[in-house]
Amino acid sequence: MSNLRIAVVGCGYWGQNLLRNFCELEEAEVVLVCDFDSRALGRAKRRYPAIEVTQSYSEVLADPRVDAVVLATPVSTHYPFAKQALQADKHVLVEKPLAQSTAQVLDLIELAESKGKILMVDHTFLYTGAVRRMKAMVDSGEIGQLLYFDSVRISLGLVQSDINVLWDLAPHDLSIMDYLFEREPISISATGVKHLNTPHENIAYVTVQFEGNLIAHFHVNWLAPVKVRRTLVGGSKKMVVYDDTENSEKIKVYDKGVIQTQDPERREKMLTGYRNGDMLAPQLDTGEALRLMAREFVASINEKRAPLSDGYAGYRVVRLLEAAQRSIEQNGRMISLRDEHFSTSAILNTSNVAAAD
Amino acid sequence: MSNLRIAVVGCGYWGQNLLRNFCELEEAEVVLVCDFDSRALGRAKRRYPAIEVTQSYSEVLADPRVDAVVLATPVSTHYPFAKQALQADKHVLVEKPLAQSTAQVLDLIELAESKGKILMVDHTFLYTGAVRRMKAMVDSGEIGQLLYFDSVRISLGLVQSDINVLWDLAPHDLSIMDYLFEREPISISATGVKHLNTPHENIAYVTVQFEGNLIAHFHVNWLAPVKVRRTLVGGSKKMVVYDDTENSEKIKVYDKGVIQTQDPERREKMLTGYRNGDMLAPQLDTGEALRLMAREFVASINEKRAPLSDGYAGYRVVRLLEAAQRSIEQNGRMISLRDEHFSTSAILNTSNVAAAD
Amino acid sequence: MSNLRIAVVGCGYWGQNLLRNFCELEEAEVVLVCDFDSRALGRAKRRYPAIEVTQSYSEVLADPRVDAVVLATPVSTHYPFAKQALQADKHVLVEKPLAQSTAQVLDLIELAESKGKILMVDHTFLYTGAVRRMKAMVDSGEIGQLLYFDSVRISLGLVQSDINVLWDLAPHDLSIMDYLFEREPISISATGVKHLNTPHENIAYVTVQFEGNLIAHFHVNWLAPVKVRRTLVGGSKKMVVYDDTENSEKIKVYDKGVIQTQDPERREKMLTGYRNGDMLAPQLDTGEALRLMAREFVASINEKRAPLSDGYAGYRVVRLLEAAQRSIEQNGRMISLRDEHFSTSAILNTSNVAAAD
Amino acid sequence: MSNLRIAVVGCGYWGQNLLRNFCELEEAEVVLVCDFDSRALGRAKRRYPAIEVTQSYSEVLADPRVDAVVLATPVSTHYPFAKQALQADKHVLVEKPLAQSTAQVLDLIELAESKGKILMVDHTFLYTGAVRRMKAMVDSGEIGQLLYFDSVRISLGLVQSDINVLWDLAPHDLSIMDYLFEREPISISATGVKHLNTPHENIAYVTVQFEGNLIAHFHVNWLAPVKVRRTLVGGSKKMVVYDDTENSEKIKVYDKGVIQTQDPERREKMLTGYRNGDMLAPQLDTGEALRLMAREFVASINEKRAPLSDGYAGYRVVRLLEAAQRSIEQNGRMISLRDEHFSTSAILNTSNVAAAD
Repeated sequence: MSNLRIAVVGCGYWGQNLLRNFCELEEAEVVLVCDFDSRALGRAKRRYPAIEVTQSYSEVLADPRVDAVVLATPVSTHYPFAKQALQADKHVLVEKPLAQSTAQVLDLIELAESKGKILMVDHTFLYTGAVRRMKAMVDSGEIGQLLYFDSVRISLGLVQSDINVLWDLAPHDLSIMDYLFEREPISISATGVKHLNTPHENIAYVTVQFEGNLIAHFHVNWLAPVKVRRTLVGGSKKMVVYDDTENSEKIKVYDKGVIQTQDPERREKMLTGYRNGDMLAPQLDTGEALRLMAREFVASINEKRAPLSDGYAGYRVVRLLEAAQRSIEQNGRMISLRDEHFSTSAILNTSNVAAAD
Repeated sequence: MSNLRIAVVGCGYWGQNLLRNFCELEEAEVVLVCDFDSRALGRAKRRYPAIEVTQSYSEVLADPRVDAVVLATPVSTHYPFAKQALQADKHVLVEKPLAQSTAQVLDLIELAESKGKILMVDHTFLYTGAVRRMKAMVDSGEIGQLLYFDSVRISLGLVQSDINVLWDLAPHDLSIMDYLFEREPISISATGVKHLNTPHENIAYVTVQFEGNLIAHFHVNWLAPVKVRRTLVGGSKKMVVYDDTENSEKIKVYDKGVIQTQDPERREKMLTGYRNGDMLAPQLDTGEALRLMAREFVASINEKRAPLSDGYAGYRVVRLLEAAQRSIEQNGRMISLRDEHFSTSAILNTSNVAAAD
Repeated sequence: MSNLRIAVVGCGYWGQNLLRNFCELEEAEVVLVCDFDSRALGRAKRRYPAIEVTQSYSEVLADPRVDAVVLATPVSTHYPFAKQALQADKHVLVEKPLAQSTAQVLDLIELAESKGKILMVDHTFLYTGAVRRMKAMVDSGEIGQLLYFDSVRISLGLVQSDINVLWDLAPHDLSIMDYLFEREPISISATGVKHLNTPHENIAYVTVQFEGNLIAHFHVNWLAPVKVRRTLVGGSKKMVVYDDTENSEKIKVYDKGVIQTQDPERREKMLTGYRNGDMLAPQLDTGEALRLMAREFVASINEKRAPLSDGYAGYRVVRLLEAAQRSIEQNGRMISLRDEHFSTSAILNTSNVAAAD
Repeated sequence: MSNLRIAVVGCGYWGQNLLRNFCELEEAEVVLVCDFDSRALGRAKRRYPAIEVTQSYSEVLADPRVDAVVLATPVSTHYPFAKQALQADKHVLVEKPLAQSTAQVLDLIELAESKGKILMVDHTFLYTGAVRRMKAMVDSGEIGQLLYFDSVRISLGLVQSDINVLWDLAPHDLSIMDYLFEREPISISATGVKHLNTPHENIAYVTVQFEGNLIAHFHVNWLAPVKVRRTLVGGSKKMVVYDDTENSEKIKVYDKGVIQTQDPERREKMLTGYRNGDMLAPQLDTGEALRLMAREFVASINEKRAPLSDGYAGYRVVRLLEAAQRSIEQNGRMISLRDEHFSTSAILNTSNVAAAD
């Protein structure tokens, strides 16, 4: 089997990371790099002098050497660029979020299936050692009955001009939750605020409800003075704190869950104490998630199967973003997710179907 | 002026702390300790052998030596006990929340005013060095225009049987926000969940809206494996992280606010960086907040003036709790705070009026 | 058996803690508190109105009610005060270090034995959940072969006037090491510096050598801007980090020891990684160490047996302090501990002999 | 001026970092990469397909295109390889430590001067934002009179086979101290231990004495379960904690120094408190130190001047390593640094003399 030939489109902050990872992958070859900004191309050229560069996306599409296109372009271009790539019979890997609406995503899914091409979204966190470890704990029942998911992803005060903080940061956490839970959410509500004359929300809070009192909550914020990336996953047996800014203890597993006690001495101890039960910080696979993600893209093409973060995973995340956005615009009204035109359970099932060729 | 003579009612976890602080106050004298539980009284007696104890609240009310009553009893008793104390012509300090409804609070305020007695609520955090420092920063304009308040108060998994997590933990953060902002909230929404067959919510998220895109958000949780007490206060000039579990750096002040830049290099630096600008962790007054609070109670009585956390402060917090509870029961519906029967601006104004004697 | 009647002598910072703990002990009764400073007595009186106070140590010694004396007085008084107490047929608990020289300690040990009284030193840390947990790990072999002990105890810049930093802070860590290792040290060397015209060393580094390449190192420092209390215990199977300033994870146990690898990929991973293997932070007993220590004093008297931190434990620590001080005065010369006039192995053995009555 | 043409020799962990940085430098060009290991060359080739590679160092020396050689090879090769490079009229940058003895270093310095070539050592930390900030604080007098330097650099248990932990880790901290202090040390002593049948020391403690009670202490350790990189710099006015594992607050500056108080209340507060005075964590330049270091090498060549970390800096560090090693072998005997054959003050002075051309 000859190496998969790839074009990386978009060479900004994330595009450079993708470029580096695909360049270092033995089973793939980057044949073309595309960016509208000649300085970005110059920087890529300096790092990889052997690589061919272009400012024209049409050239990428027309190049018969290119088997697959990797899109790290602004969100508004995801849909048209991915569509053109599929139409040109290329496999496509798209930066998150996969597109700007569920309608767009469904269109891409359908096109990919009809063309027999792989459509994948870069939900990078699914490929981290930390998230994979949590997934194993949920799947094995170690964590017990799921009670809640709470994530805080707040950052340095970098206000973006094209999208709001919800569409920028929440896809990470929504994709992690979707992966861990594999449950159908029943409703969503969200609040967002714009500050300082910016056109887009820079703080948002999102709540997702599931059957059985399971709840998920998300706090995304561009106006925070410190970087926090912390997720709590509460189960009836164990609870996990996932702190992505930690160097050596990203995952802490607490081995006691909830305590219901009326014993006053025990209560007092708990009120003044800091925790109960042992805590285990397991050694995690520290391999770069992006490399695993890149490898999954290549493998899914070679093995003619759906990748872990396929178009349906992208759909489920965009569906939540879309509904959350609607809720924000309606002052936090709870949006039902039951009567959507595309049944999630269908999506969850098809997820395992291999892409045709 | 002779010492103020105090009865401490309720000798559980918090009552013991109040007892110790009032005992060590030079300007007051604890003459009586009351609890229904004889073991609690035994424990108090062992620590303070000279103190008189009783299991009868009526005895406290009837004791002519008692000038003031300090209530650290279950929330459901706050209103009847405080009312009886005022009727018996005693000053009253009540554990937070002041009562279980705004109607109850208003009744107590009116009674205290007609009796010329002090009604105070123990909003302990207002008396910490950390909160007082933040208040000074807000008042002086150092922090700039207020953008948001975000607090997380999550704990060890101790499920209480009498009230839910909202009424148990949120009063702390609501009182801090009320103190720092001195603004009239316009609406509130909240979500809460019950788990594990408990009758009360053990996780709740609350959002409060103010004019001018100012937002406050609260996460309270009894089912967390770790203790987190972290508040962010975002301003246009500075931002503060207040971490109450920190030993030595409870308050961190970041001296740059939001940055809106299109410069790609600057953007990349920020995306990969952890913060901007210097951070100052000011030395704080580390005196015990509870002692300051106890002192304020005694001083307000002696000086015939409203204490910092007076009945109106208690009202403003209970009003938010009450509305948040209503929102939880209506699936997160936004509750307007504008058309309340008791105008908040009136409350804000009367706050500075001295109690008559 | 009637309660043991205790006199607490010295009511400074630590004396107050001892007083509180003995007061709350059911099996003992504090009948007398002694301090030269009338303000200290006033403060004790305010907290424990029922307690008798005196400024005269002779009165304590002469009081027939007093079974045992607890000394929390300046180090220079430990020897004379303890000697007088034993001569007056009282049991004695002495703040660390037990005395200022091994000669003094041996004199006290001999006197206590001849009088059939308990002589105990307050090596508080032996009674913490953290140290007891480490002891269990060492004794059970879980930690493997002991490789090193490294402790850092540095503080806030409080320069004391009576003793140097070595005699002030190192007793804590030396007693912990002595307890964990139960080995005979073969030599010691130390360096100390005086700054800012102070008469005593305010920074010291101490190295203790044992057979088999086992090493212990101590850093004590009064001139540090931050409080650090961190001990590493390295074993061939596991390693422990004990951070006493941590609220909830005082003990972290790392389950992989040393790795000797030539595999370049493995090496690179380790160079850039932060650790190997899982880490466990066991739930510790969070009871107050001082209470356990107080209880041990009372129990050893009642049960006519040597307490855990008996005179010999005090001797072993003072012997190291004395030799370290000599090394400091000789520019760090290594001092042999083999040819001491009092054989340590004898001491280690007698440690388990019950005190006669 | 045409670009400087560079050969990178040694493509292990650190060599790859150097390669990347020199490749991305606009003012230089990497024309050749050399390693004995063909897999290392393959990896370099995959990343930089345009680069020429060779397994022969002679080829590097003979290549007339090569202006300068960057050595990231095992320590034992530093001296012979650097000497050959200088003899072949190339400038040389050598990984730390510059060589294995002062005799070797002096030989290289002399050769470089006679050839008019730059000899530089990669003391990377001098080029970090953190160390440069500390240097500015020392130089401006902000820190006051220097009292002590204390560093802990302990790691993951990776035992190396060619050198001991002293020569591996201590050069970093010795070079930082040398840079900050610019003082002539008067003596040094060190203790080291070998464990687990390894031929080299894997734990070492080093103490360096200066005039005026200034002291420096170093703890280097390969057997630690956690990565610690923490340096304290104590001054009479301010104290600095430099924690290189911190993401966002590498440098913390405490604005109060030592306190000498007899006031008992103040003392008690300090005993129970965590620090005094405000703490400032200044925003640091987060640019990659290695890039600045690479730039300094190129600039020193172009500007015909001594680089910041020149041969004399390398000499001062190797001199301390050599004396510390001697002390370890003599059981911690204090080694005087006064009567060395090469006067340090001469070295300090010549440091500013530009290299001839």
